[in-house]
Amino acid sequence: MRSSACYDPSPENSTWLSSKKISFLPLHESNTRQILTLVTTGYSPPLMTDRYSFDLVLLGFGAVAQAFVKLLMQRSPALGFQWRVVGVATRRHHCAVSTEGIDCKTLVNLGTTGELLDMCHDSTMGPQPASALEVLKQLSELYPKRSKENRMVVVENTPFSLDKGQPSVDHVRTALTMPADVITANKGPAAFAYRELSDLATSRGSMFKFEGAVLDGLPVFSLIQETLPGVRVERVRGVVNTTTNYLLTAMERGQTLSKAVIDMQEAGITESDPEIDIEGWDAAAKASILANVLFDANINPHEVKRKGLRTVDETDVRRAHQDGRAVKLIAEAKRHSTGGVATVAPRLLEASDPLARLSGTAKGLVIDTDILGPLMISKTTSGVTHTAYALMADLLSIHRLRTLNVT
Amino acid sequence: MRSSACYDPSPENSTWLSSKKISFLPLHESNTRQILTLVTTGYSPPLMTDRYSFDLVLLGFGAVAQAFVKLLMQRSPALGFQWRVVGVATRRHHCAVSTEGIDCKTLVNLGTTGELLDMCHDSTMGPQPASALEVLKQLSELYPKRSKENRMVVVENTPFSLDKGQPSVDHVRTALTMPADVITANKGPAAFAYRELSDLATSRGSMFKFEGAVLDGLPVFSLIQETLPGVRVERVRGVVNTTTNYLLTAMERGQTLSKAVIDMQEAGITESDPEIDIEGWDAAAKASILANVLFDANINPHEVKRKGLRTVDETDVRRAHQDGRAVKLIAEAKRHSTGGVATVAPRLLEASDPLARLSGTAKGLVIDTDILGPLMISKTTSGVTHTAYALMADLLSIHRLRTLNVT
Repeated sequence: MRSSACYDPSPENSTWLSSKKISFLPLHESNTRQILTLVTTGYSPPLMTDRYSFDLVLLGFGAVAQAFVKLLMQRSPALGFQWRVVGVATRRHHCAVSTEGIDCKTLVNLGTTGELLDMCHDSTMGPQPASALEVLKQLSELYPKRSKENRMVVVENTPFSLDKGQPSVDHVRTALTMPADVITANKGPAAFAYRELSDLATSRGSMFKFEGAVLDGLPVFSLIQETLPGVRVERVRGVVNTTTNYLLTAMERGQTLSKAVIDMQEAGITESDPEIDIEGWDAAAKASILANVLFDANINPHEVKRKGLRTVDETDVRRAHQDGRAVKLIAEAKRHSTGGVATVAPRLLEASDPLARLSGTAKGLVIDTDILGPLMISKTTSGVTHTAYALMADLLSIHRLRTLNVT
Repeated sequence: MRSSACYDPSPENSTWLSSKKISFLPLHESNTRQILTLVTTGYSPPLMTDRYSFDLVLLGFGAVAQAFVKLLMQRSPALGFQWRVVGVATRRHHCAVSTEGIDCKTLVNLGTTGELLDMCHDSTMGPQPASALEVLKQLSELYPKRSKENRMVVVENTPFSLDKGQPSVDHVRTALTMPADVITANKGPAAFAYRELSDLATSRGSMFKFEGAVLDGLPVFSLIQETLPGVRVERVRGVVNTTTNYLLTAMERGQTLSKAVIDMQEAGITESDPEIDIEGWDAAAKASILANVLFDANINPHEVKRKGLRTVDETDVRRAHQDGRAVKLIAEAKRHSTGGVATVAPRLLEASDPLARLSGTAKGLVIDTDILGPLMISKTTSGVTHTAYALMADLLSIHRLRTLNVT
């Protein structure tokens, strides 16, 4: 089936190719006052630039990618740019390519029901590609030279192996080389190959963004880089993994780790195999990213000093809680003479430590700075929509950077 | 005395007027890796643009303005732009103007010892101006048409009256009209006249920035506007006033309000007259700013529903603390059908409320969002350096926006 779809913020146009009209859409809501507000306070929403369009390629189409597409569809009128999905790659549900745009309602329905994506592929594009790299290759060959107001963005959300972060590192490398911009909530690329990939992005004029990789939708890198100019960060430490924090909260109430794991699996809160989280690998990947980006560490998760939750005595967790203190699995990255270093370990936190208050699915990061002392950013809940939002925020940020022209 | 000084990031040049050399200075530190990092993650430090210069006019030269000048002097090599002070206005220590640049070491010394600023005035500029508005007028007349790479920035830090926010509103209005950019840690302008001043800034192509007015150096507006694109904020509530929070923490330990006030005055932590804080006026001004900027409220502090600390029963504070709960003076602003509304009142917070943990000089804001639920940003300490940093962050932000050219 050949299907075509794109999302145009001006409701009277169903495709940007046929439209000449320039409409005027602010980022937050359709409200002139708000535009003035934002401009005045130094923030530039995408004014008069909603002819800008993104061609999205989804590598991996699991829960996060599906939530991302749904969120984009829902927020389309306010995004300030047009977008369409031109490629999708999955491991078990096949791949699809259509430079005219894949119908996203159909795509989301197939994702929800777990059906094959064959009907989304436009056979005039050539044979159905068999892998993520083949999708990228086919799109590279199919595409004419791209206009200044259209950009390919690869949305990387495939599972990655713990040994070398593959295949996600290869996916990002290939995408940045095309050159396409990359947004990802995947920890693999920045945890295993941040320096190489960021150098590659610079040399190719691409952008590599992964705001959701550490704290879902909570801003970390944009917070430090955009809102704290001139501040030197010395150390960051945080509660970054939902599974282990949820388990520790259950243990505070007197449950054993094994029982808490079973309850969590039954409630559908954790993956079927939570061992990667329990052993601290997820937190180690996040600590590696923090050390790589903030302290130029060039390390991978295997170089993070790591202790998992199985080293914790359940009685200690309960006692600490009764004393007003808390045991938390803390990921930490800090500045060091040799670059950055990172550790993951269960820590006994005093009641006065703001991280001690993050229970259940809460997450947060304490940022030690030279000028402002310790700052903290946190949120109470987590979920797949938050991660999907982080991808949307990355896309909005790319749009803003590629359309800003203040001077 | 005619003195001249400017701060040039390239150490071999003492004035930018004589220098043709383009040097290469990143925002955070002189490190190519970091530049690549920042560019790659979408952040653009001021590359090859350090010929950009700011002419600063200091309206008010109290503790915050002095700390700001000291911080700029200290951080000059890493700022990425040049700056000099071309005007200073004080109420009791006279005013000074010098388009060649006032010597900042002399200026800071005079500020520290509380001496008159007469020796900083360049008499070839005309008679010594007698007020802040006269300083602005004299500078308007003295200045030739400004180059594209030089910008006047007025740094407003005068005390403001509680009835109408004057004279700070007049100062900002005059400055934006010149047109100069305005940075301020003063609550008056945005609390009393945000809509008028932001409209004026837009129409004059000026920038009006006040990141330090609500939470000292902690980012609030840049956090919401730059790092949370597409998120709709429904409500913000926070601990925003140091004096009252410090007093409440003392009351938790069993002190009476009167005794705590005396101790605080003796320790030099609060102004000689803390009544403005105790009655909730400082928090009301901050709540007004939050409602005006985030929810388009167009209100002033008199329209904030306000209850001060004198309505609090000391026993309640102690008991709440013993139960693990806390009484806090909470400033709140929320979205409303008629725009935004704001309140200030002492509230009994449950132990699970993250604001309940902000003791002493800590500050923080909970931001209720549509997509991410409640987020929180907080810091442990406060101080004049934090407020001075907020002014520097505003200046760095203006520099970034005025030199960015991504497309």
